Amino acid sequence: MPGNKDLQGTLRIGLAGLGTVGRGVVRILQKNQNLLQARAGKRIELVAVSARSRNKDRGLELERYSWVDDPVELATRPDIDIYVELIGGEGGVALASVAAAISHGKHVVTANKALLAVHGQMLAEAAESKCVGLRFEAAVAGGIPVVKALGESLAGNRITRVVGVLNGTCNYILTQMEREDASYSKVFSEAQGLGYLEADPTLDVGGIDASHKLALLASIAYGTQVDFAGVDIQGIERISLRDIEQTRDMGYRVKLLCVTRQSEDGLEQRTQPCLVPCNSPIGMIEGAMNIIVLEGDSVGQVSLQGSGAGEGPTSSAVMGDIVDIARGHVVSTFGQPASSLVSARPVRSAVPVPYYLRLSLVDRPGAFAEIALALASAEVSIDRIRQYSHEGEAAPVIIVTHETTRTRLDGALDEIRKSSVCLDEPVFIRIEEI
Amino acid sequence: MPGNKDLQGTLRIGLAGLGTVGRGVVRILQKNQNLLQARAGKRIELVAVSARSRNKDRGLELERYSWVDDPVELATRPDIDIYVELIGGEGGVALASVAAAISHGKHVVTANKALLAVHGQMLAEAAESKCVGLRFEAAVAGGIPVVKALGESLAGNRITRVVGVLNGTCNYILTQMEREDASYSKVFSEAQGLGYLEADPTLDVGGIDASHKLALLASIAYGTQVDFAGVDIQGIERISLRDIEQTRDMGYRVKLLCVTRQSEDGLEQRTQPCLVPCNSPIGMIEGAMNIIVLEGDSVGQVSLQGSGAGEGPTSSAVMGDIVDIARGHVVSTFGQPASSLVSARPVRSAVPVPYYLRLSLVDRPGAFAEIALALASAEVSIDRIRQYSHEGEAAPVIIVTHETTRTRLDGALDEIRKSSVCLDEPVFIRIEEI
Repeated sequence: MPGNKDLQGTLRIGLAGLGTVGRGVVRILQKNQNLLQARAGKRIELVAVSARSRNKDRGLELERYSWVDDPVELATRPDIDIYVELIGGEGGVALASVAAAISHGKHVVTANKALLAVHGQMLAEAAESKCVGLRFEAAVAGGIPVVKALGESLAGNRITRVVGVLNGTCNYILTQMEREDASYSKVFSEAQGLGYLEADPTLDVGGIDASHKLALLASIAYGTQVDFAGVDIQGIERISLRDIEQTRDMGYRVKLLCVTRQSEDGLEQRTQPCLVPCNSPIGMIEGAMNIIVLEGDSVGQVSLQGSGAGEGPTSSAVMGDIVDIARGHVVSTFGQPASSLVSARPVRSAVPVPYYLRLSLVDRPGAFAEIALALASAEVSIDRIRQYSHEGEAAPVIIVTHETTRTRLDGALDEIRKSSVCLDEPVFIRIEEI
Repeated sequence: MPGNKDLQGTLRIGLAGLGTVGRGVVRILQKNQNLLQARAGKRIELVAVSARSRNKDRGLELERYSWVDDPVELATRPDIDIYVELIGGEGGVALASVAAAISHGKHVVTANKALLAVHGQMLAEAAESKCVGLRFEAAVAGGIPVVKALGESLAGNRITRVVGVLNGTCNYILTQMEREDASYSKVFSEAQGLGYLEADPTLDVGGIDASHKLALLASIAYGTQVDFAGVDIQGIERISLRDIEQTRDMGYRVKLLCVTRQSEDGLEQRTQPCLVPCNSPIGMIEGAMNIIVLEGDSVGQVSLQGSGAGEGPTSSAVMGDIVDIARGHVVSTFGQPASSLVSARPVRSAVPVPYYLRLSLVDRPGAFAEIALALASAEVSIDRIRQYSHEGEAAPVIIVTHETTRTRLDGALDEIRKSSVCLDEPVFIRIEEI
């Protein structure tokens, strides 16, 4: 490939974006220079950098690198072989500079999940036509090598499911609610105070960020074009402390799960709060950690966990991609030629699963019978029931159903809403067997 | 590289060994043919096979492949590009055929940990001089992609520690002892009856198999030549049910841990029963599962878990290596050129850690005081003490020490052995903070 010609002795990097991750990459390049050279078989040299403000003190020695104000100019410099985009954002200068780098025959490494979730197919095709790499390990789950594991290590497998906790902030909030017996809004405010949330918090708690990552993994898993628009997204905003406590009593934990699975009907991509067994690897993941379970027809389940964000882990992932390119290892962006990826046909989950229901019933004889009939008429059968002591008028009832389809569940919920005994909108949470 | 010339349209495989893993590889090649072609960008075709007995019914359609009785002949056939060695054993025909394949310019994929633990450096140098790949993901922890994660994804990190549970049989035995309240010898016999143990069980319970894997990981982690002889090995044969119960009471689980770490003094490689916190990812790994925690200066801790053995997982790992080679991705066997690997300088652990001690004391006034003095004179300080109700003459006492060096601990043990109050040989188990 043309790019490789430049790679004989030294791999020359242009890096745009000197935020947390960018600084981390510069630090690794400075402190582990010899180690990198031994492993990559050539020198890996940072040549030029770009960031919004040149004069900001970043606690880094940057004088030895060329400074370029415009990332597009940086990305197209003749003296770089690889452009590292750590600016962020789905469009704007991130998109412009990545596209420019590719069209100038530079390899690209990025941590930008939004960019690839939206423009991934177009950029992957461009990279392919120029025979350059476009790699993004750092965009999904920080330091956890899931892109490589899925696209390379598990390449012999038909992937049956990918399940992940991919947003550390949401997992932090859910974990803190349980630990501190605190409401969603209280923990949300604390997390905001600690700077854990994006400027637009719905990116985190609304499930957008996790869904960007899910869309990238689904493409690799199933050979489909990235389809962020096809992700069924529900955030954690409606999870109450009561749900957390009562599901825990029944052996479950609430997690914002990203799930993708392919059936004959099409591609299912869901980001939604789900219940998982407390003692499963996903159930036990705490705080800002991420976990991904990869499930394949040969390998069974492999799970990977670690820090999903932060300077060290994310810059470690960026460096892994850089070393790959230095070694001449350029896998297609989504694991197979971009031109061979097929359009995803989004489907809502058709797999029958158990559900958790929380109802608030009028406290009078026959109330529960009415609910039981509503479920029976929709052919939803009950696995477990718990009734808690009263709170004023309402008798809180928890039901865990047997496996049922979403269509049947919706039918049962309609019946329940129509009944005269249900006081509030029913809460339901999918139970993901894992 | 020369090997790559043959790889334009089809990658042609010769496979030797049709045991569990070999059959799994054939099944994947048959059922996932199209998927593999899409991902690898070329056809991956099994051309010829070899195994001890041609007429054995393996439940596989093998007629379409050439049959070759002699693996060395198979490995050197002009019509194969890659030789897959699934025979096993550290020498003999496995070694002869791998060496022959390399010298004929064939890539090699193997699941043979013993072979590489003993002859890895020689074979890696040979592969390098012939510009062919010698890959072994399946040799370590079955379907868990730890070789790739360590050698590629974490290539930007100075590795600070690798800790793993790498022998599923030992973990099964320890888990069953706890679950069933059963003695080591009882569970050992059951495991043998179930066919879980190697023909020579000391390979498993004596820690040899796990140490082969550890030696391979240590080489990748630290750029040292594989040094199996330098692994400090202790098996699980001396672990009693009492140790399991009493350490659990204190919040620990016994695991056969493989640990490698490098200091200025040299390379530490240990396989030994250790205590880990019950609620840590390693503490929670049950049955025949494997787990590896990779620790790097940037990434922090990443842990990978899954099935460490069996047809599906191990053949998945073999296929991952084959697809890599089909894609033209040939990383040095141990992550950097074999000629640049340095000799390992084995050291015993110099890191101070806490220890668990189980003593059996004479039941008389002043007995414990004598032990306390013995510890104090060796400068080992006590963190926690538990004394259990008597069993005949002896008073069982459990001590957890503060962090101390192995030298000080040995001094304390000598003092304890010399004392008049200790009835049995003291049992001590290292506590690994993870």
